[in-house]
Amino acid sequence: MTRPDDTMVNSFVPGEVELASGDKSLVDRRLAALGPAYRLFYQRPVRLVRAEDVWLYGPNGERYLDAYNNVVSVGHCHPHVVDAIARQAGTLCTHTRYLTSPVIDYAERLLGTLPAALSNVMFTCSGSEANDLALRIASDFTQGEGVIVTENAYHGTTQLMAALSPSLGPGVAPSRTARLIPAPLHGDGARFAADVAGALADLARSGIKPCALLLDTIFTSDGVVADPSGFLAPAVETIRRAGGIVIADEVQAGFGRTGSGMWCFSRHGIVPDMVTMGKPMGNGYPVAAVAIQPRVVAGFGAKARYFNTFGGNTVAIAAADAVLDVIERQDLIQNAAAVGGSFAAALRSTPDLGPVRSAGLMLAVDLIGESGGPDPERAARIVNRLRDRGVLISVSSKAGHTLKIRPPLTFGLDHLDFFMDRLQRVLRE
Amino acid sequence: MTRPDDTMVNSFVPGEVELASGDKSLVDRRLAALGPAYRLFYQRPVRLVRAEDVWLYGPNGERYLDAYNNVVSVGHCHPHVVDAIARQAGTLCTHTRYLTSPVIDYAERLLGTLPAALSNVMFTCSGSEANDLALRIASDFTQGEGVIVTENAYHGTTQLMAALSPSLGPGVAPSRTARLIPAPLHGDGARFAADVAGALADLARSGIKPCALLLDTIFTSDGVVADPSGFLAPAVETIRRAGGIVIADEVQAGFGRTGSGMWCFSRHGIVPDMVTMGKPMGNGYPVAAVAIQPRVVAGFGAKARYFNTFGGNTVAIAAADAVLDVIERQDLIQNAAAVGGSFAAALRSTPDLGPVRSAGLMLAVDLIGESGGPDPERAARIVNRLRDRGVLISVSSKAGHTLKIRPPLTFGLDHLDFFMDRLQRVLRE
Repeated sequence: MTRPDDTMVNSFVPGEVELASGDKSLVDRRLAALGPAYRLFYQRPVRLVRAEDVWLYGPNGERYLDAYNNVVSVGHCHPHVVDAIARQAGTLCTHTRYLTSPVIDYAERLLGTLPAALSNVMFTCSGSEANDLALRIASDFTQGEGVIVTENAYHGTTQLMAALSPSLGPGVAPSRTARLIPAPLHGDGARFAADVAGALADLARSGIKPCALLLDTIFTSDGVVADPSGFLAPAVETIRRAGGIVIADEVQAGFGRTGSGMWCFSRHGIVPDMVTMGKPMGNGYPVAAVAIQPRVVAGFGAKARYFNTFGGNTVAIAAADAVLDVIERQDLIQNAAAVGGSFAAALRSTPDLGPVRSAGLMLAVDLIGESGGPDPERAARIVNRLRDRGVLISVSSKAGHTLKIRPPLTFGLDHLDFFMDRLQRVLRE
Repeated sequence: MTRPDDTMVNSFVPGEVELASGDKSLVDRRLAALGPAYRLFYQRPVRLVRAEDVWLYGPNGERYLDAYNNVVSVGHCHPHVVDAIARQAGTLCTHTRYLTSPVIDYAERLLGTLPAALSNVMFTCSGSEANDLALRIASDFTQGEGVIVTENAYHGTTQLMAALSPSLGPGVAPSRTARLIPAPLHGDGARFAADVAGALADLARSGIKPCALLLDTIFTSDGVVADPSGFLAPAVETIRRAGGIVIADEVQAGFGRTGSGMWCFSRHGIVPDMVTMGKPMGNGYPVAAVAIQPRVVAGFGAKARYFNTFGGNTVAIAAADAVLDVIERQDLIQNAAAVGGSFAAALRSTPDLGPVRSAGLMLAVDLIGESGGPDPERAARIVNRLRDRGVLISVSSKAGHTLKIRPPLTFGLDHLDFFMDRLQRVLRE
């Protein structure tokens, strides 16, 4: 079996390396049961049985430093979150069509972390559902269809979102009403705004009314772009002048990861029309949301009711509330800033690595070949050798030449030392 | 504020009735925070703080017999499921790109409940995501776009699914490539197949290639249609002859509710190309799935990878596995058949009620007015008076004149006695 024709760089290819017999039989059963669309990370898949804070463990005591999982953002199996889930699951698990107090308390608490203009929030199960709902509402509000995304964006797995996620590769056709623009890899705000204007002009030529500029505010799958602060502002102006709105996809960047407040968009001094969030929101419990300016959702709400059976259920809310507790009590935003700063400095002072881009604990390092171009093979080699030495990261960017590092926010300086020690060994090899 | 222009019959309308001041302030805060698209059940919303098995409890000790919730299908807060969630959440909560054994074990166990031809399963968070993914795969396989659904169907809340869910009301436009057909309310299989053929002809006239017949196998939102067994077979033949496939939406009917095996479609002697499932799968933990015939997903899997961060995570799988344990150990399919049979008989022998349609613990009762037509006002009155007497049900059907009753599968004959006592009191009023 050969590698499928897609663009997932860090994926297991059956037959490429020899697996231990237990793993081999599990991989075979997995393919038989889950079918051909699933992928595993790494040349040699990582088998896991338990986890704690920033450490993952295999069945034979193998230990991995987790420098990649941005879902369990307050640490794997955090007892405060686990307790909240267990307690609420044993008390009441039901949906939003009954009157319960905690979902309202949490909504108010969450909205308190956002600019005052974003004063409504709607709950979903996943970031995909959050982006899908945001775009349904945006289409109703603008009566437009044109959506501008970056050329290696990832926004989700529903039909609507997959067609706006070019990072899924050439096998998933972009929407007819989508326009792709280059990610602002050098943080050039004027250039990025000009690209938005160009996409708007192209939409106009096709007779497609603009709807939204949909952006992962830290451009995770495009290779991570954080600086300079404020570079997004001109693009936001540009789409709004054309009657479109701005959806900040904070599914990856949100909940303190970037170390400068709860939300990455605030680095840019902008107030989005909608903000979507998900992955780390319940530290692994499926919960996600869209925060919205009320003027945007008023028309939608008057004619179309919204209900999501599991979205914002009582247990999801208990998990999400506990996550906010931990972020506050353990000062995790400050930790992301401090450790992330040291992390970026350590990477920058490491020979043989290319440019580093980061904010807090979202970090990216380009691998540049001798010819001066992207070196995705070396990136893949580093990722797989780190895995063999007990450190988990992955890759990003359209060319696949960018190391993507985004550990739980509880990552400390001792973990950083461990990481850099293993990285240096791998680079020496 | 007046009732929004939608077709949700059993919903709270602010100002319609006087609320206790605590509830009033909560409702106001809820509207302010969650915005205008959310609805509450009942004229007088039900406030809840805890639940156990088939009972729900309010903050002042109010007790409600739950004859409506089909998510907590093995009973609210079932200790075996709660323990499984708590234990796994404290051990490892991660996704399907690492190799873990339980997701494979569960996939095999779940597939063992389905016909052998359905031998792949893919996991999502919600029924909406499951139907959305099923249709993405169906479109790839058939290279068609035309989807046939019933005229008051509900299949989900993503953009793709909302446009195939006419029960959401006139505010949500059906897809251009959708064709709506009447639900087979009298179980007339030849007539239903003729309606499918008519829709196919209409698609052909519009130059739209057929993709799928997408059916809730018990037609929950159309008013519940269960009998006679086998009536779906001719429609299935008809869509297949035209090159389309059959997606059985078992999100509501699945996991034993209909009392005749795990899946409702088996009543009809058909083998769908895909089966979607959700609501009761994790007894409230967000987990859903698509079971697929491998030939249907082969092309999709070769070119488009699938990943869903939360879908089929280790905790979701632990919850889902525990649900199958409980269904087996407590003989819940047999209970659904037995208690459901007594329930239908009791409703049929009650004066002043119209036709009863049911399978297991999915029951529907029409309310017919003096003129012989649907009486949605009386249905709403009964639902709200039952709520005031501590019994929760809701309504269904396009006209809104059908009582919809679908308690947890642990519902017993003692609960049935309680239910019938309250119903008779309400009918006497």
